[in-house]
Formats: sequence, structure tokens, C-alpha cells
Amino acid sequence: MTDICFLTTRELRAALGARDLSAREVVEAHLRQIERVNADVNAVVTLVGEQALAEAAAADERAARGAELPALHGIPVAHKDTHDTAGIRTTYGSPLHAHHVPERDELVIERMRAAGVITLGKTNVPEFAAGSHTFNPVFGATRNPYDPARSAGGSSGGAAAALASGMHPLADGSDLGGSLRNPASFCNVVGFRPSPGRVPSWPAPLGWTGLSTAGPMARTVADAALLLSVLAGPDPRSPIALDEPGETFARPLDTDVRGLRVAWSPDLGGAVPVEPEVAAVVEASADVLADLGCAVERACPDFTGADEAFRILRAWQFAVKFGPMLDTAGDRLKDSIRWNTEEGLRLSGTDLGRAEVLRTELFHRFREFFGRYDFLMLPVSQVPPFDSALEYPTTVAGTAMETYLDWMRSAYYVTVSGSPALSVPAGFTPDGLPVGVQIVGPHRADFAVLQLGHAFEQATQTARRRPALA
Amino acid sequence: MTDICFLTTRELRAALGARDLSAREVVEAHLRQIERVNADVNAVVTLVGEQALAEAAAADERAARGAELPALHGIPVAHKDTHDTAGIRTTYGSPLHAHHVPERDELVIERMRAAGVITLGKTNVPEFAAGSHTFNPVFGATRNPYDPARSAGGSSGGAAAALASGMHPLADGSDLGGSLRNPASFCNVVGFRPSPGRVPSWPAPLGWTGLSTAGPMARTVADAALLLSVLAGPDPRSPIALDEPGETFARPLDTDVRGLRVAWSPDLGGAVPVEPEVAAVVEASADVLADLGCAVERACPDFTGADEAFRILRAWQFAVKFGPMLDTAGDRLKDSIRWNTEEGLRLSGTDLGRAEVLRTELFHRFREFFGRYDFLMLPVSQVPPFDSALEYPTTVAGTAMETYLDWMRSAYYVTVSGSPALSVPAGFTPDGLPVGVQIVGPHRADFAVLQLGHAFEQATQTARRRPALA
Repeated sequence: MTDICFLTTRELRAALGARDLSAREVVEAHLRQIERVNADVNAVVTLVGEQALAEAAAADERAARGAELPALHGIPVAHKDTHDTAGIRTTYGSPLHAHHVPERDELVIERMRAAGVITLGKTNVPEFAAGSHTFNPVFGATRNPYDPARSAGGSSGGAAAALASGMHPLADGSDLGGSLRNPASFCNVVGFRPSPGRVPSWPAPLGWTGLSTAGPMARTVADAALLLSVLAGPDPRSPIALDEPGETFARPLDTDVRGLRVAWSPDLGGAVPVEPEVAAVVEASADVLADLGCAVERACPDFTGADEAFRILRAWQFAVKFGPMLDTAGDRLKDSIRWNTEEGLRLSGTDLGRAEVLRTELFHRFREFFGRYDFLMLPVSQVPPFDSALEYPTTVAGTAMETYLDWMRSAYYVTVSGSPALSVPAGFTPDGLPVGVQIVGPHRADFAVLQLGHAFEQATQTARRRPALA
Repeated sequence: MTDICFLTTRELRAALGARDLSAREVVEAHLRQIERVNADVNAVVTLVGEQALAEAAAADERAARGAELPALHGIPVAHKDTHDTAGIRTTYGSPLHAHHVPERDELVIERMRAAGVITLGKTNVPEFAAGSHTFNPVFGATRNPYDPARSAGGSSGGAAAALASGMHPLADGSDLGGSLRNPASFCNVVGFRPSPGRVPSWPAPLGWTGLSTAGPMARTVADAALLLSVLAGPDPRSPIALDEPGETFARPLDTDVRGLRVAWSPDLGGAVPVEPEVAAVVEASADVLADLGCAVERACPDFTGADEAFRILRAWQFAVKFGPMLDTAGDRLKDSIRWNTEEGLRLSGTDLGRAEVLRTELFHRFREFFGRYDFLMLPVSQVPPFDSALEYPTTVAGTAMETYLDWMRSAYYVTVSGSPALSVPAGFTPDGLPVGVQIVGPHRADFAVLQLGHAFEQATQTARRRPALA
């Protein structure tokens, strides 16, 4: 049964399509795996096993009738607990919503379910997805399957840990400051932050603002691309949705990468401190691409303004969302959310203007950089998976981190640029902790980024090393 | 010669393509028309006649060689004086820039020139395009060709007046709060505000913000669509550009409008005062569509929040742009710009958040409304062309207007919705002043809006009534 749980989605889907496996078998295997390992990992925090088995039976009936089967027919998934699921508890990791049951699916869930996924339950998140370490007062912390004393990252930490430990082969996540990428890096799986508008969002109170985005996670790049093919594409409910149809991303990823110009930097051009174990993996990853025939060069865009722009825009969004709650329910928000919200409430319109100008300038510097290089390879996280007992790493390469955001710069600087960014498994520390690299491409060149990530993954096979908890 | 100046762009382009007319003849005719009427209209404020004739000669040579000719081969255009033109004075209507000569074309100009237009010069604007009445300390006021004592509207007022009086057949404009629509309405020409991202903008310091947009103006809807086919389409310099290629808009506009569900309101559902002469034209226009077989019904979306959202977002953009100038050059900005900038400097981040939430809510109300109706027909302006000596109309239908923005609500409420909006000639007041109607469609349904506008225009032929000054 465990073997079923480490097939790729594409393999599973082929077997389901050929009826070599039934949806029931697939779902049962994954439910058993959850039963086996979730007590230690704490990735899946709400389980709807009976509903999943009923959905599997219905899927098997459709297959038996010879009906046309959708792209993700029979694929079991647990959804991020910040994504609303109709009839299934969705807590956002907050005690304020510990018993919240949404009436409707949000858009990404709607799309996944229309594509045939079978919902197993919900994956753990930090409180309101704030911060890149998955713990909350409702469900506690998610453990890293490679070392339960370490963080699984976040905010899509439950998703990453569940993927790594074979609880399901695909997962939806979301990313403002690295939430699809850091957990992927920490758990040796794939997380892809798409270009703004690639994966439309609804409901979204700030509908015209594309800084936060949903995106796919999986154990392979090809599977992440398959999920992206379901998540992407226009929807009239999102004013910023890109028009390109999702099916674009279902094309084969194989491509000749020889001659591609890849810039790389272990530390964002000196902009951030990075632990040597991480920098070493980035450097080795550049060598992998060189061996594949890429023209690899150490270079990096100038990230000036990225920090200020992100801090302002993030705090502003926190003020919009949590500002009205500070008085009525502030004592039930974690300190870091209160702090970030208060930062936001102090902002002026002029601050917002400066942030948007800086964001535009960074976009153009990236655009010009990508005139000289096809891709940029960076660390995902500045640190390997850190002690799970910490709220965040308090130092990075000897530099003290003053807030819960400081250590996330290598991810959130890229957010500000508007570029698509893939976190792909790349190596391990001497202690056996996973380290991903971040492959960044030009704005909207999502498919090209996935292609290079796929070639890199094929060359390294890093993802094949299974975790202790699996 | 005057006859050449009242051909449509499509007719001119056909004649140029068939070499029935040379670019030289076309340009000479339009230069002569400018010489004849511009002293009274004051629409073209910078003229580059010699350069235009040289460009015409080069165009004729290309045609003589049998080269493939671009979409706007040989079509003379004067560009809006807020659009940067390489080597041609661009004042923005401000004494601060009275002698400014840009080094490069901005994106829309680059596209028009690549499509073969011949630049005649620049069209007048209000100072920094602020306000919907075209006057400034550099060049004075543009006159309405239908009545020189009246406003030509703004901010693309020079463009609208030049089109109406036969100085050129196409024009680029831009629109934040109605600047493509009000002048079109006042001058009996066509102005089209496209969906955000349809016409990419560069350079644009707030590159991710799509509230202001460039767009096409012409004497016919088909010509506006032709120009849109040149202006639209993705460009890597705009992070919010829509992917749909511009050529989409070059398709024939003819369509069967029978059965289309068109809602109309003379006063935005009671949200704004409207002069009876304007309301009468809107009502008559609804009858025109009914006669064409549309299912016409008096109905309107709820515009709650549109005013607050627009006021905040506009003032914010003014603060970003003019805030740094208040201390150093404030005395050379007009009062209304200083006032609007000071409003912006007082804004908090929370104000901006409220505006974005309201804007998103309005987007969704429009989206739902367009589930019930295919189009919405509204007044463009709440007033007919007003006394040119006023900075703005001080009363509308008996209601006092307190600021220079108050009378622009029928246009800027639609801005906030994100919908494309066409201003198309619709009738005249008893005094012979032009009145346009505004055809609004679902977000991104730009082509459909142009199609209905084309059908409406064919039925009314209002645009054929030439102005006194022509």
C-alpha cells in the first residue's frame, strides 16, 4: 500500500484511467498512510475519510460507466486549511474559527474538485497563514517528516509535510512571502509560486491586488505542472486573472536546456545572510545546470527596495484584514499578527505609494535582468529546516533576526518582483535536512520555469530520498 | 481637400493602400485643415509639419517599392500632450514642462508609430491632464468645434476637438476619471476606455495599478477599434497587460444585436444629478437600441462606494505624482491639482484599503449585473458642453458642484467598476450641442462593447453632423 502512496500523480492517474487501480484502492491506501504517519507529522488536521470513500466509489462508478474522466480523476488531496471548503471545517489555524464550516468552496477548491480530486481533509497552517512555520493554537505544530524536531516550513507546511510523507500526491497552497516555497524546501517537495493572476483567487476582498497567490505543490515538478493546469486560467470572478488557459501547463515539460543562460546567487547578490549549508546546495545546483549544458554565471538583480515594498504591502494587507479585529478579538490573535497589523495601521497613503513605486522599479530591474539571462537560481530559504520549538530562526549565518519576517527575505524579495518562482528539491545538509533551490524566471514565463525545474529534477533525483516519517 | 479630412481612417487607409491617395496628399490636406481651423479651436498645440511631410514622403516611397504596409500606414495623428514623444515637445500642459522634449516615445506612441502613423504634432490637455476641461497656462483653452464658447471636455480635449474639426482622423487619449469619454461626448466623436491592462502603459511609476489607461479616439467606432488593434496587446514592460493580441480588435464589428439585453439609466440609478437635455438623449438612445431589436430595460447596478473609492485612489495617485513637487514647485501647479494632492497626502493606508475593498465590491456587483444584462447604457457626462470660461460646471440639474471632480461622476463611477466603456455620439441638445452616451460592458468584453457601439452608430448616424468649426 505504501508504494501506491509514493507513485506520482501522473502515474496514479494513468493507473486509474486504465483501471489498474480503483479510486477506492487509491483513497484507502492514502487514508491508511495518514493513519500510519499523521500522528507523528500532524500535517492533516481535519480528515473526512468517509466522504472520501464515498467520492471514490462515485469516481469508480463513473470510470465503470466509461465516462470521460477529468484530469485529476480519483486523485486524493487534502486542502490547505486557509482555503474554504464547502461543508468541511476550515479553521485558518485560528481559535476564532476553530469550528468554522464554510458554505462554499473557494475558487481553487472548486477547480480541483471539478477536475476530479477526492478530498481527504485539510492540511495544517500557521495561524491565518502568517509566518513560514506551521503551528497554531488549534492543532499545534506540523513536524518535518525528515526530522520531527524541525519545522516543516509554512504557511503551506501541512501540505508539504503530507506530500513528503506520502499522505497525498498533490496539494494546493498559497504564497505571499514564500508560503509555497519555504515548506517545499524544508520538506523536499515541489512548490510553485506562479505569476500574479495565473491562479485566480475568489473570494478575495482585495481583488485587484495580486501579491498573494494560490499555487500547486507536489512531489515532482511534472505533478505540480499538472495541478497548475487545473488551477490556472481565467475566471470572471478575478479581475486580474491571466487569459492563458490552464491546459497550457499540461503539455510535456521535456525540453533541451543546453545553452540556456542561468544566473545564480547563493545570497541574492549579498542582500541577505544565508547559512553556508544552504549556499553550498545552491552552488552545487548551479553545477548541475552547468553539467546539463546551461550557460551558468554568478549574477543577481539588484533587490533594492524589495524589503521596504514587501514590508509595507504585507502590513497594509494585514491592516485591511485584521485591523477591524484588533479591538474585538485582538487577544485571540498571535503576537506576530498583532504586530504586523499595527505596523499596517500606522501606514500612510504615501507609504503605500512608495511601496508601489519600488515594486514597479524592481519589476523593471528583473525585466532587464531577464534580457541578459533566461533564469535566476537562488536559495529558497536562508536556512535549513530549523528547530520546531522556535517561532522563527533567531539568527541566520550569525545575523540576528528581529522579527518573524526577517529570515524569509530570500523568498519574499522574489515575491515583490512579480516573477514566477519554483522551489525544487536540490540536496541535503550533512545532517540530512532537505534544501531546495528557487528557480525564478521572467514575469509570466511560468511554463519555462517549470521546464527548467523538471530538467533539474531529472538530473538530481533528490526528491527520491524518502523521509524518516513515511 | 476638406473632404479628405472627413474620410474615416478605414477609408483613408484603403485609399492609401490602393495608392489612390498618397501619404503626402493626406498629410498636406490635414496640415491645411489645421491651418484653417486650429486658430479658432486651439486643439493642436505643437505642430511638426515638416517632419510630417518627410515621414509622408518616406511612407510613399515604401508604398512605391511595394513593401507591405502597416495597419495605419500614412494616417496622420497628433498625440496627446501628456504622451511622451521622442524629439517632440511634450508639455503635459504645465508651465513646468513648457520646453520639455522627451528622448523617447512612450509605449502607445511607439506602437502607433510602428503601425505607420504620421505624427503631426501634439493635442492640448488640461494641466497634467487633471480635470475634464482642456485649458492650461501654456496654451490656453481648447474650443469646442460645435460652439467655441463651450468646453471641448478633457483631458483628451485637444484630441476630441481635432477629430471633430477634421484635423486628423484618429487620436490617442487616456482616461482616469473620464478623459477619453467626456471630450468625446462634448465633441461628437468616439472615445473608448478599455478594460484595465488592455492598452499597456510604459513608463508608468505605478506599473501594477490599472486605474488610468490609454485608449483610442476617432470619429467612428470602427476607427476607434482599428486604433485599439494597434494599441492593445501584451508588452513585457507592463506587468498588468492583457495577453489577448491587438489584432483581435481589427475584426469586423458587424453583428446581430437583436435579443441583446441592454439595461439603461439616465442618472446611474439616481446616484447622480443629470441635466434633462442629457437624460433625454440617453432615453432616446435606449429607444434606438429597442428599435434594433435589443431587449431594453431601465436598470442600473448599485454604485455604492464608487465615489469614495475613486476619490481616494485618485488623490493617492496625485500624492504619489505631485506630492514631491508641492514644496519645490507648488506655486506652478493649478489650485485643483494642489487641492487633490493635499487630499492624497492626508490619506492613511487604511483609507487605501477601504478604497480597494470598495472597488472589488463594485467589480463584483457589476459582474453579477452583467449576468442579467449584456450591456449598460448611461450618460457619459452629466452635462452638455459647458461654458468654457468656467473651470468646471458649478451646478448640475440644480445641484451645486463643490469640487472640480463632482460633475465627472457618471464617468468615474464606471472607471471604478473595471468595465470597458465607450462614449459614442448619440444626439444634440436643442442648442445643437453634442451629447454622447456611454455603453458599458462586462470586464474585458471590450470587443462586444465596440460591436454594440458600432450598431448604435450605424442606426443613428449622429456623428455625421459636422461642427461649425471644420
